[in-house]
Amino acid sequence: MEKEQETLRAWKERVARELDRVVAFWLEHSHDQEQGGFFTCLGRDGRVYDDLKYVWLQGRQVWMYCRLYRQFERFRRPELLNAAKAGGEFLLRYAQVAPPAKKCAFVLTRDGRPVKVQRTIFSECFYTMAMNELWRVTGDARYQSEAMEMMDQIVSWVREDPSGLGRPQLPGAPASESMAVPMMLLNLVEQLGEADEELAGISAELGDWCAQRILQHVQRGGQAVLENVSEDGEELSGCLGRHQNPGHALEAGWFLLRYAIRRGDAKLRAHVIDKFLLLPFHSGWDPEHGGLFYFQDADGLCPTQLEWAMKLWWPHSEAMIAFLMGYSETGDPALLRIFYQVAEYTFRWFRDPEYGEWFGYLNRDGKVALTIKGGPFKGCFHVPRCLAMCEEMLNDLLSRLA
Amino acid sequence: MEKEQETLRAWKERVARELDRVVAFWLEHSHDQEQGGFFTCLGRDGRVYDDLKYVWLQGRQVWMYCRLYRQFERFRRPELLNAAKAGGEFLLRYAQVAPPAKKCAFVLTRDGRPVKVQRTIFSECFYTMAMNELWRVTGDARYQSEAMEMMDQIVSWVREDPSGLGRPQLPGAPASESMAVPMMLLNLVEQLGEADEELAGISAELGDWCAQRILQHVQRGGQAVLENVSEDGEELSGCLGRHQNPGHALEAGWFLLRYAIRRGDAKLRAHVIDKFLLLPFHSGWDPEHGGLFYFQDADGLCPTQLEWAMKLWWPHSEAMIAFLMGYSETGDPALLRIFYQVAEYTFRWFRDPEYGEWFGYLNRDGKVALTIKGGPFKGCFHVPRCLAMCEEMLNDLLSRLA
Repeated sequence: MEKEQETLRAWKERVARELDRVVAFWLEHSHDQEQGGFFTCLGRDGRVYDDLKYVWLQGRQVWMYCRLYRQFERFRRPELLNAAKAGGEFLLRYAQVAPPAKKCAFVLTRDGRPVKVQRTIFSECFYTMAMNELWRVTGDARYQSEAMEMMDQIVSWVREDPSGLGRPQLPGAPASESMAVPMMLLNLVEQLGEADEELAGISAELGDWCAQRILQHVQRGGQAVLENVSEDGEELSGCLGRHQNPGHALEAGWFLLRYAIRRGDAKLRAHVIDKFLLLPFHSGWDPEHGGLFYFQDADGLCPTQLEWAMKLWWPHSEAMIAFLMGYSETGDPALLRIFYQVAEYTFRWFRDPEYGEWFGYLNRDGKVALTIKGGPFKGCFHVPRCLAMCEEMLNDLLSRLA
Repeated sequence: MEKEQETLRAWKERVARELDRVVAFWLEHSHDQEQGGFFTCLGRDGRVYDDLKYVWLQGRQVWMYCRLYRQFERFRRPELLNAAKAGGEFLLRYAQVAPPAKKCAFVLTRDGRPVKVQRTIFSECFYTMAMNELWRVTGDARYQSEAMEMMDQIVSWVREDPSGLGRPQLPGAPASESMAVPMMLLNLVEQLGEADEELAGISAELGDWCAQRILQHVQRGGQAVLENVSEDGEELSGCLGRHQNPGHALEAGWFLLRYAIRRGDAKLRAHVIDKFLLLPFHSGWDPEHGGLFYFQDADGLCPTQLEWAMKLWWPHSEAMIAFLMGYSETGDPALLRIFYQVAEYTFRWFRDPEYGEWFGYLNRDGKVALTIKGGPFKGCFHVPRCLAMCEEMLNDLLSRLA
């Protein structure tokens, strides 16, 4: 018992120190003091190697700074709030490609001109998260009305009419659902409902719908989580149908875990731990070198994605959150052991003791494949979110033990 | 002299045997006897792991079979011709998404329904190559008129109005040119002009235009070939501008070499060998493990593509062609030495002595990363084209030495 407490305390301190270093990295290197918003293409030492602004990452960094500001005494600093506000204003001014249409760009030039548009909902989702957090921190109603309008648009694209996304309907393309969509929506439902009791009530139906859609991705008699299924929850043919993304399943796992906890549904909680935590961990963990594979094929065939065997920072961050949350909720020591296993691997291989932040992309054997700290898909999000949530959960666990 | 002849003869035999094995692999595993066309998603042992039909790869396999049938006595077999015709008919019936519009799909279901459309010209280019070769082999004018109509459409998209490709014009997207476009067009000009004197005359202007556009990708005072440049031939900012693809430069190299030879332009020939063969080879060859990097950054920064340090089959196939052609044309022994160096690496690491064909994707250290023999981007094309062209060039060299 004392031993356990000691290990938890050591990890809490390790995680808190790491969070400080990670936040310091982004504060030092990523702020565009002239135009607002954030540089995210940062080399190993933080140097900007490209000044494009990826909308996902702008929204995520605004969200992250607001969260840290709101929930951690030591991050309640004007520096974070001002950068978040400047990022929010940048998004308000430039993210939408052709306002009043809500469609947002995927990437903008440094001064906000659209470079590329994705035919998905994700830029808009991170925009919504950013606006909602900004409202919660500043109280400025403009941000919240932006968040609510964008949320309505996203829900309408997903549940009513996707034509505004610009994807052509082709007769050979199966009507498929990527798990990312209901996952992201469930995350938004929680984000928006947290601070608004009334909204929480209205969106309960949406949350239930999302959860039910995510659960449809458990296939093959409960033996596999598949990333893509048909509209009516059946396995699709070919590589698309067999595609697995263990990190995504684990991230969906902790979204669902929180949903089950909010509803007080112990049976669902157990199901989620079994299918979205243990199953992807056991199938996705590399028995030879450790770490989680990026992609797998449910029949054990070779995936066609070149990076399938690489180890990426975000599945490991999400796995840390998922297993620590699972342990916090159940007290099952097996889940704590997996948390330690993932965290040890992660701190050993992803962390950069020299320049701060984490490497994002390792080869299968754990060696650094890309030295960048940020890029088109890696910004100030998965690492600090993981560290902040783990620090909070470890604090809670320690105070419960005290 | 005798030693040289012996080495060349040994390589000729090795290459010819390998071509036989590679062709046998595709003949055995890739034909869809029911619906026509080719399966290209083939596992290590040739088993079909997905039945989607990628239009690039359908067109390329038709082209390859016709070439082999036309140019090699031992491949003048009904089996090849019939499969090529069945592939051609499949393309005629299904490739165009909404005829009479010429835009082709990127991938079709097994029975020909479109799954995805790319907003580029490449499906259409491989369609054109397939139709032109089918005409040359069968004499059926229907194929040639298809080829010519598609070629007109491609040229109009590239030189007059790209709007039919469906790419949105965004204010932040620089007007850039990917080297792939003039390269591919130059290749088509040669393909169509070979068998048609009159056409060769008409398309000389187009060939000159393509060559001039490709040459604009030599930047930084002749010190780097950049994959993307501005419309007026200047370096673009950021990662896009610094992006390098050594295999692509080498492939463009032998397209340009043939162009220079046709024009009898010795100065251009020397320039091409210097800038498109030696420069990308020396910058792109991995000093530690051998093999050509897939992508590089002209400033030596870390590329953002996860697969940048992997070794892919096609840059090595193209390098073999380029250096053997360079040697055949100049007699420069330095070029022959590089051909041997690349060929030794390629036969050592890509070849699969057990099941035939080559692996496509190796880790930086040469170990197999993906065991597939075919997939969405690898079909019956770069490997047999390389082996067939090298066999012919080695034959020529040997008969000149005899």
